[in-house]
Amino acid sequence: MAVLLAGCATAPAQDAPSPAPAPLTADSPAPDTMRWLYGSGEAAGVSIQAMRQLADYAVTQSRLRNIPQSVPMGIEGTIRSESCIDGNRIKPLAVVFDVDETIVLNAGYEAWLAQGNTYSSESWQRWEERGGPLARPVPGAVTALRRLRDAGITPVFNTNRQHSPEGARQAIETAGLGKAVHRETLFLRGDDGNEGSGKDGRRAAIASRYCIIALAGDNLGDFADLFNAPALSPQERRELAARGEYAQLWGAGWFALPNPAYGDSLKGTIREVFGRDADWSPQPGDAPPIANEGSK
Amino acid sequence: MAVLLAGCATAPAQDAPSPAPAPLTADSPAPDTMRWLYGSGEAAGVSIQAMRQLADYAVTQSRLRNIPQSVPMGIEGTIRSESCIDGNRIKPLAVVFDVDETIVLNAGYEAWLAQGNTYSSESWQRWEERGGPLARPVPGAVTALRRLRDAGITPVFNTNRQHSPEGARQAIETAGLGKAVHRETLFLRGDDGNEGSGKDGRRAAIASRYCIIALAGDNLGDFADLFNAPALSPQERRELAARGEYAQLWGAGWFALPNPAYGDSLKGTIREVFGRDADWSPQPGDAPPIANEGSK
Repeated sequence: MAVLLAGCATAPAQDAPSPAPAPLTADSPAPDTMRWLYGSGEAAGVSIQAMRQLADYAVTQSRLRNIPQSVPMGIEGTIRSESCIDGNRIKPLAVVFDVDETIVLNAGYEAWLAQGNTYSSESWQRWEERGGPLARPVPGAVTALRRLRDAGITPVFNTNRQHSPEGARQAIETAGLGKAVHRETLFLRGDDGNEGSGKDGRRAAIASRYCIIALAGDNLGDFADLFNAPALSPQERRELAARGEYAQLWGAGWFALPNPAYGDSLKGTIREVFGRDADWSPQPGDAPPIANEGSK
Repeated sequence: MAVLLAGCATAPAQDAPSPAPAPLTADSPAPDTMRWLYGSGEAAGVSIQAMRQLADYAVTQSRLRNIPQSVPMGIEGTIRSESCIDGNRIKPLAVVFDVDETIVLNAGYEAWLAQGNTYSSESWQRWEERGGPLARPVPGAVTALRRLRDAGITPVFNTNRQHSPEGARQAIETAGLGKAVHRETLFLRGDDGNEGSGKDGRRAAIASRYCIIALAGDNLGDFADLFNAPALSPQERRELAARGEYAQLWGAGWFALPNPAYGDSLKGTIREVFGRDADWSPQPGDAPPIANEGSK
């Protein structure tokens, strides 16, 4: 096993006094999170297979023809299914996608960050407005969305972009992901009158018009806002999503795309991320945790 | 979009002269790669759905009863299918798994690294020998392996661990992943007489006894050695895996598990990871690449 540890295991250099490190250039090492997501075949494989799984699932569901209820999803702070019945018919079928790092790769903005720049709402606004022509698809997304549309399923986009519906539309189309129409198949932060980052309100609005058979995102908030409750520790949040009743939805209605580069997934101290049952040292005398419980 | 940029966008502090940063403790921030993999519900969701997809695929294949050839895989430096026929019968069905960060999470060793320690072959050897009792399963792996065994499919483990077959066996069993027998269902680096990290030789040995219907791993080398040829740039390697004839295998015989914490996926400068078509700046006057092509 060739372990290549992230430089981030040490404190960021920007916190250390001078002499300042050499300025970053295009020839500097990329951060490991970005190497993996934007530069590796492994990440491409994970994304392609997730998109295939999503399309297989949704196309199979669409053939059932009699779908009384949506997939479970976050609505009004809880997780529930919404009715797919509208009068005496089934609402049109839809799959709801997050946009950034779910179907669109923001390589231009991330490459700018990698060169030592810091995220700001101003630079991100500029990217929303002007980055569209540089948008690339997440591997597998173009094929998956084409398969959905061929099966009569509408891709609907629920994004926390907030500055430019036109920029979002352009990014989706430039990436080869087809058409998006603001407030019909494209919903931005604020479109439900709520300026927060929660997506439950927009999910409710989409569910009033569509029968949502699947959700896809890189953030648990793309499935339900309750996962991003501030009171949850990282491990509580992980266990809520990965155990019990919600665990069975991954790959069967809920489809997660990998994004270690930014987002609510990146929280926690070493203790919070690993817990005490990961305490270990290679020093001679270390022993299994049961054996040394008394000496700790 | 709440962008939380990795501290690693700046040079590691260990390259800067004194004063030394404060020593890391359990209360220090964990590296983003580890936060995502070991601490996020997003990573758990990605893993659970991949393991479900693998089990669904393999169980469906096992019902075909007449499988003349294995899934395509790396053998002798190429990618090809091996015969599943042995005399007048089909060889026993198997799925070949990598171990570390594919089915077993090495949280103990990674937590030790997170505290400012550096990978060494000595510390890793110690982990191989003594870390077994701390092994945890990758989310979804326990259920997937149980489903395979229930369907008469043998999980076979092909790992680059090299110091302790007994430690590897213990890690797999402690994680709840069932039995592993060295040189029967568990193959370590060196077991084919080749001390390199390539796995083609062990795959050939396993394929001589089993009909391999699927492969799972966190490294492209778990599918074929040719992906890890040193001459490939990161983007060439990604494109080889994600386009053309191999792209169709992700989710249909090849199953990738996400690991941004270490491995061959983590290579490249900013330029190598992103390429020139990600050149972007939020400065006023920036324009779509087509418009400013002449001025660059």
